[in-house]
Amino acid sequence: MTTFTPDARLATNNVLLCEWPLSQVWLVNDSRYPWIMLVPKRTAIVEIFDLDEPDQIQLGRESLRLAQYMLKYFTADKMNVAAIGNVVPQLHVHHVARFKTDATWPGTVWGVGTPVPYEAMALSAMTEELSAQLTELLA
Amino acid sequence: MTTFTPDARLATNNVLLCEWPLSQVWLVNDSRYPWIMLVPKRTAIVEIFDLDEPDQIQLGRESLRLAQYMLKYFTADKMNVAAIGNVVPQLHVHHVARFKTDATWPGTVWGVGTPVPYEAMALSAMTEELSAQLTELLA
Repeated sequence: MTTFTPDARLATNNVLLCEWPLSQVWLVNDSRYPWIMLVPKRTAIVEIFDLDEPDQIQLGRESLRLAQYMLKYFTADKMNVAAIGNVVPQLHVHHVARFKTDATWPGTVWGVGTPVPYEAMALSAMTEELSAQLTELLA
Repeated sequence: MTTFTPDARLATNNVLLCEWPLSQVWLVNDSRYPWIMLVPKRTAIVEIFDLDEPDQIQLGRESLRLAQYMLKYFTADKMNVAAIGNVVPQLHVHHVARFKTDATWPGTVWGVGTPVPYEAMALSAMTEELSAQLTELLA
């Protein structure tokens, strides 16, 4: 474990699933959509191009592996992958598994409606399984 | 020039600025935000991880160069970079230059409000300048 601490707005209510070489992997606590953020463990980085080149390549690799994993694991219809950061500038990359039946399809998820936290048991089970599998994925 | 033709919904009303090694570079005809899409010249690709590995790396490179260029050229406050594709599945990556003063800040732009096309003269001037500079950028 590193001692990297992300912006509190990225961490609050969310769950740290694992640490990858570059990024922390955070589950967003919103049961409306499977939603995982990569937060590179670098300070004072806002845009992807603020990373140095090896980190840019590593972020691309981690993002692709995560998106591929999520599409399959959640049997989703589409992955939405985005670096936005208008509210929290610290670089974080959203990975949202989307379904044609979900609450806002085909619209995007940011700023729409109100997050619905997982129930405690469901969150605990999901965290345990995702932590193990995602740790394994980049081991 | 290649003979690659993107999904009509990506091309209609928008303007092809230039061809990069992997992607076509399209200006979105919506004057509310400087908005440019990269459309990889590959068929039957939906997710970034559907590309082969050299293309994934090249897309990352083209996306970073474009985002860096746009932030500076438009003196924007933030870049929003996203692969969504819920409406048009063919892989395309949005690059939107955002301003704290723009119409939907800090919200995202997708599906919000109604596009406002550029006036013909402005579109023509913008297209000419961006085409030249973006062609140069990856020459």
